[in-house]
Amino acid sequence: MAFKTILIIGSGLIGSSVARAARAKAGVETVWMADRSAVVIGTVDRLGIADGTVEGAAHHYASQADLVLLCVPPAKIAEVAADVLPVMKAGAVLSDVGSIKASVIEAVRPYLRDDVSVIPGHPIAGTEFSGPEAGFAELFENRWCVLTPIDADDPALPALTAFWEALGSRVAVMDAARHDTVLATTSHVPHLIAYTLVGTAVDMEQVTGDEVVKFSAGGFRDFTRIAASDPVMWRDVFLSNRDATLEVVDRFIEDLTALKRAIRWSDGETLLDHFAKTRDIRRRIVESGQDEPNFGRDD
Amino acid sequence: MAFKTILIIGSGLIGSSVARAARAKAGVETVWMADRSAVVIGTVDRLGIADGTVEGAAHHYASQADLVLLCVPPAKIAEVAADVLPVMKAGAVLSDVGSIKASVIEAVRPYLRDDVSVIPGHPIAGTEFSGPEAGFAELFENRWCVLTPIDADDPALPALTAFWEALGSRVAVMDAARHDTVLATTSHVPHLIAYTLVGTAVDMEQVTGDEVVKFSAGGFRDFTRIAASDPVMWRDVFLSNRDATLEVVDRFIEDLTALKRAIRWSDGETLLDHFAKTRDIRRRIVESGQDEPNFGRDD
Repeated sequence: MAFKTILIIGSGLIGSSVARAARAKAGVETVWMADRSAVVIGTVDRLGIADGTVEGAAHHYASQADLVLLCVPPAKIAEVAADVLPVMKAGAVLSDVGSIKASVIEAVRPYLRDDVSVIPGHPIAGTEFSGPEAGFAELFENRWCVLTPIDADDPALPALTAFWEALGSRVAVMDAARHDTVLATTSHVPHLIAYTLVGTAVDMEQVTGDEVVKFSAGGFRDFTRIAASDPVMWRDVFLSNRDATLEVVDRFIEDLTALKRAIRWSDGETLLDHFAKTRDIRRRIVESGQDEPNFGRDD
Repeated sequence: MAFKTILIIGSGLIGSSVARAARAKAGVETVWMADRSAVVIGTVDRLGIADGTVEGAAHHYASQADLVLLCVPPAKIAEVAADVLPVMKAGAVLSDVGSIKASVIEAVRPYLRDDVSVIPGHPIAGTEFSGPEAGFAELFENRWCVLTPIDADDPALPALTAFWEALGSRVAVMDAARHDTVLATTSHVPHLIAYTLVGTAVDMEQVTGDEVVKFSAGGFRDFTRIAASDPVMWRDVFLSNRDATLEVVDRFIEDLTALKRAIRWSDGETLLDHFAKTRDIRRRIVESGQDEPNFGRDD
């Protein structure tokens, strides 16, 4: 493994899972962990998942690590990157695990160095829990990790790919703008729509009373599950991935407006054509192993 | 039990489940079943879940039954009701299991008789399977059944309520327009939105390739599951519940437009306020026993 020593900044669910997996599966010899919270660092020390820890600035470790991996919230990534880049050693790699890429790359661009590889990344993995105690070494197994190198020919790309593959991930490489559009479609806009619909239903309760809760099994329940995610994180996601989110939302509103018009004019054929084409993508998701067949209300 | 003899017209999942439960749990002495499909009736005969069956028009049984229950698709309910009402015996009850109520009541109104109680109903229950072999007696246990009597003081309402309670359901009584608005919010519009978003993503594939399928675990997958439901049934639902569906869709588009504006102008406070209020309804759904806590991606 190219990375003998790694520094993980941000020691929550993702950071602590990487720490566990790095030693267990990727042959990393030394794992250092940093966090701005003394409580979190205390927990990391108690768990014994790091060879060295520090609360706050991690310049000492950052100057020695082969890989510095930023596992802080999306809104903090650029700031922390700007802080550690100047002290990193020549030949080292800086990466992250944030769910938006293009805006972070733009913010980091002024701090880039010729002798440090910056390769942003995004492991598509998580659970409903948070904090270092929730982490586990198997979190990334069979999950996709997207890498969005600033320089497509970055010489460190094979090493970082091998690192995530050692953690059990499947690695996809694409440019940052494409990543952000794909994720806007598959994750960000679905969350925005779920939040919106649940909010609409809360307002409708003035009309419907608690029947929205009573009869939620009809489909609405699935939306409330999605809309129960961390509000602060999602606010940051939407603001950081603004352009792609707005583009997909606009297309969605256009499509919904067309279906609304079909309903208003009793155009059953348009509805049926639209509903039929969506089944194919469900079939492909089941075939790709991303979900179980016939789970829930499939036909 | 007030109903000694019942006729079930439409012998699919719901009809065959009622047939099984009526004898096993509700003390019904004689269950007759009808279906326009000879294949379905052949299956019902083989399963032995009815005391008598008929393919097509069921006038002979309809003239003798204490309860005639229409379990045909939503678009067929009014037509079948108009066909059987004239031959039903005095004092009998006509009901149905369709997911839209107001438009069906309007269509049936010209055929109403003073001596037959018409009490539309909607058991909120189902599985991903269809046909008489998929039915089972426990389908309605702990599920809500909504009754929407045309006359709120209908003398047969207690008997029909007792029938569904005997099948294990919780019964709610409300007027048809309210039912349709509640269901538009909790079921019909969520399905329309899921169909729309999956369709939008299919079109986005021209930009994103098969990455929509690859990275569907981010939230999109849940939408594809909802959007895999029967297209013909949902076309009929939207066209039959047009007014309530359009009202809820319009409110939803207004709300989504407001959030879109907040994203465009980096108004994080508006986003956060909105996202926080949706968590309360999730908590109430979990508390009401309609869903498991922490299933999926809850916090």
